[in-house]
Parts: sequence; structure tokens; C-alpha cells
Amino acid sequence: MRFEHGGRSGFGRLDGDAVQVFRGDMFAAPEPTGERLPRTELRPLPPCRPGQILGLWNNFHAAAQKNGWNVPAEPLYFLKSPSSLAADGAPIPVPRAHDGRVFYEGELAVVIGRLARGVSVAEGPAHIFGYTCANDVSAVELLQRDPSFPQWTRAKSFDGFCPLGPVIVPDVDLARAHVRTRVGGRERQNYPLADMIFPPAELVARLSQDITLHPGDVILCGTSLGALPMKAGSEVEVEIDGIGTLRNVYG
Amino acid sequence: MRFEHGGRSGFGRLDGDAVQVFRGDMFAAPEPTGERLPRTELRPLPPCRPGQILGLWNNFHAAAQKNGWNVPAEPLYFLKSPSSLAADGAPIPVPRAHDGRVFYEGELAVVIGRLARGVSVAEGPAHIFGYTCANDVSAVELLQRDPSFPQWTRAKSFDGFCPLGPVIVPDVDLARAHVRTRVGGRERQNYPLADMIFPPAELVARLSQDITLHPGDVILCGTSLGALPMKAGSEVEVEIDGIGTLRNVYG
Repeated sequence: MRFEHGGRSGFGRLDGDAVQVFRGDMFAAPEPTGERLPRTELRPLPPCRPGQILGLWNNFHAAAQKNGWNVPAEPLYFLKSPSSLAADGAPIPVPRAHDGRVFYEGELAVVIGRLARGVSVAEGPAHIFGYTCANDVSAVELLQRDPSFPQWTRAKSFDGFCPLGPVIVPDVDLARAHVRTRVGGRERQNYPLADMIFPPAELVARLSQDITLHPGDVILCGTSLGALPMKAGSEVEVEIDGIGTLRNVYG
Repeated sequence: MRFEHGGRSGFGRLDGDAVQVFRGDMFAAPEPTGERLPRTELRPLPPCRPGQILGLWNNFHAAAQKNGWNVPAEPLYFLKSPSSLAADGAPIPVPRAHDGRVFYEGELAVVIGRLARGVSVAEGPAHIFGYTCANDVSAVELLQRDPSFPQWTRAKSFDGFCPLGPVIVPDVDLARAHVRTRVGGRERQNYPLADMIFPPAELVARLSQDITLHPGDVILCGTSLGALPMKAGSEVEVEIDGIGTLRNVYG
């Protein structure tokens, strides 16, 4: 996890209720400093600083079937602005210049650990640093507002529209883990990662054919059923088995 | 301009055939080092390192009219991957995993100089560091390949699909300057910046309502008539009055 403490930012490894502080490059053999800090004294930062945040559309069989979408022949992806990045606990601001409805989308996020350019599916896992929880916040009405140009980038890129966290874990049980999204404590999404159309290793391989991926870059794996608009003041929690819970309040 | 020299990267101010080298932050009162280097000994780098590259669609009246597009009520924009960034003189690679046609699009690029968040049109110019030439390379057939999802991000984001340069100039005569694109020496685009629907100050203001813009970020102002596919081996030159010429070979 990354954190702020006493005005400085740092990163470390969670160990019970404490964080072992590390220094250096998180993705290139960082060294422990020997310092341990109580987690409660730390303000969480986004767990990595992605140069790019790629997001998947239509990547779960259940959502494709329910919405009448074809299973895509290739990953269908968009970019979210790096300015949309937000930490666990940060508010999700209401957009200044758009008053349409804003949806939560609980998702698994893949964090790249090694430069990936044209890698194979077999090589994919070695380029993954780990996994975290994401809320791919979306002003979906923008997609249809101008019929000549679906505004995917804008709908996904408002400041604060990409909460990530709370921590990155090196592995997730993709065959068994579920994503659960709760709004005001009520469960709204609960779907298995096993239902993914293009799983993480394949996403890394396919996307790296087009775009060089760098350590810290993030791929959001897409959402499944149950994404809905948020009311101002709602707390949204995205929980993934084996990772933890990402909490943010909208508005 | 930014450059590589003797294995190091640096930046400086062009002065005739030489570059006065500066140190520090290009956007925050950099200091001259006193060193002068002959421009011919320098390998150009992209003139800034954008955290994000935003691009406009349908931002010129002539292109809208010819293509039967409505003049948009608001800027319609997409993101290009930072991995698409390329220098003056760098090759534009043929995508590994897409064999469709690839178009050049000669454009004016706006470079942000000061953090911009929710700024007004009147405040826009103070947030602009300068202007450079861009080739917004586009694999346009991807836009229609999957009818459920126009692949704007992918079409625009392949490695090397955003040549920028050769230099950033602090100002451009938006009322008089033209963008000229030549392919293999033959002029294919020649359009006035005065025909822009949303000019730079308005783009900075409008986009900064949605997305915080940081120093070094780039907004590509969109192209006008004459964008066509490139053949492998073609040299594409984008020349803008008062800036210079950006040259890249496709394939």
C-alpha cells in the first residue's frame, strides 16, 4: 500500500495492524527501512501511480447475456484520465459541468509490474504485480448525449472517478473470488471473477500488442451486473475476496 | 525543446542553430546552465512528457460541413495513451495486432503550463505553456469494427501514434496560421487554425471543468480536411506557421 504520514508519502507492506515501510522503487526490489507504522495513523494513498488506466467494457458473460451484447472477439477498452485516480476513503466529487446520473462499477484492477510490450498470454502473469479493488465511476448518460460521438473518455475521466485500493495483493483466486459492491451497506453487485471473458493474463497480453504497459499501469477488468446510479452522500464499498474493501462516498 | 545528447536527456531554448541548455523544471522557472549545444548534435525527444494526451474530434467547421457532422455543442474528446508519444524523426510503427489502414492527421497541439482545474475561458491562456505540431495517427477502421463499441482509444493509442514536435513555441497566430501536412513531399492538408470550433483557451477551460490538467499535458486540437491513409515508407510532415515542421516515417 501507499500512504501519507507526517506530510510525507511512502509505501510499505501490511503486516497485521502495522505497515512495514519500504524505500526505493515499489516495482524494482524495494528495501525495507526497518520502520513500522500503525495503519490507523496512515492516510491511504492510491496504491500505485498509474501512467495509464485502461478499462474494459463488456468483459463478463452474465452482463453480456442480460444486456443482449455479443461476446466480443477482442477486448474492448477505453482510457480513464490519470486525474481520475483517487484513494480509499477519498470523496468522489460530483462533476462541475455535468449534472447527469453517475454510476458505481465495482471491478478488479490489475497492476502491471514489468514493462509489457507484445507479450504472450503465457508471459502475462510475470508482468502482473498484483491486484486491487476499483470503482470505475461512470457518467453513463454522456455516452448517448451526442449521437455522433459516444463520450467514453469523458464519462469515465472526471476528477476522482477512479478510486483504487486499499492495497495491492500479489495474487487473487480468479476461480473462486467474488466482487461485491455495497451502497449504503446494501449489496448491489456480487459476481464471480470466474465469469470474466478475457481474464487478466490475456488482457495484459492483448493490450500489450497495441500499447506498451509500464510498471504501475492499471487495467480495470470491467464490471458485471448490478451497476446503478449513486445518490449524493452514498458510501460505496467494493470488496474482493482476498484483497479487502475500497470505501468512497459520492458527493 | 527536449533532446538527448551523449546519453543524457535535457531541454533548452533554440537560438539559431544552437540550443541554450536549461536545468530544473521546464514549467517552473528553469535556469540556464550556460551551455550551448549545436542543434545538429542533438537527437530530438518529444518536447514535453505529457501525463495525458487529450484529442478533439470534429473541431473544424470545414470538416464538419464536408462530412455532414453537426457543429458540436461541447468539445468531443478522447484520450491517447502516453505510450503513443513519439519524437520528431521517430518512426511510426505499424501496429502488431491490427492490419487496417492507418491515417495521418496533422494538428495543432496545446501544451499546458500550469495546473488547470475549473478555469474560465479568460483564464485559459495563462495556463497554456505553448504550442507544437502533432500527428494524431489513427487506425480509423477500428472505430467501426465492433458496432457495439467504437474503439476510439485503441484507434488512437498504438505505440508511436502521437508524434509531437519539433519544438514548443510560446505563441501562435491563431488568426493567420495554417496547418500543412505533406506526405512524400506532396501537400495533403492545408487548413487555417482560424476555422477551429473550440479554440485553445476554450478547450483548456472546458476540459478543465472535467479533468484537472497538469503542466506538460497536451490537448490536440483536432484535424480538418485531407486526412488519408499512409503507405508504409511514407514520410509525413506536419508544418505549422510559426512553429516548424514535424517529420516522421510510417512503417
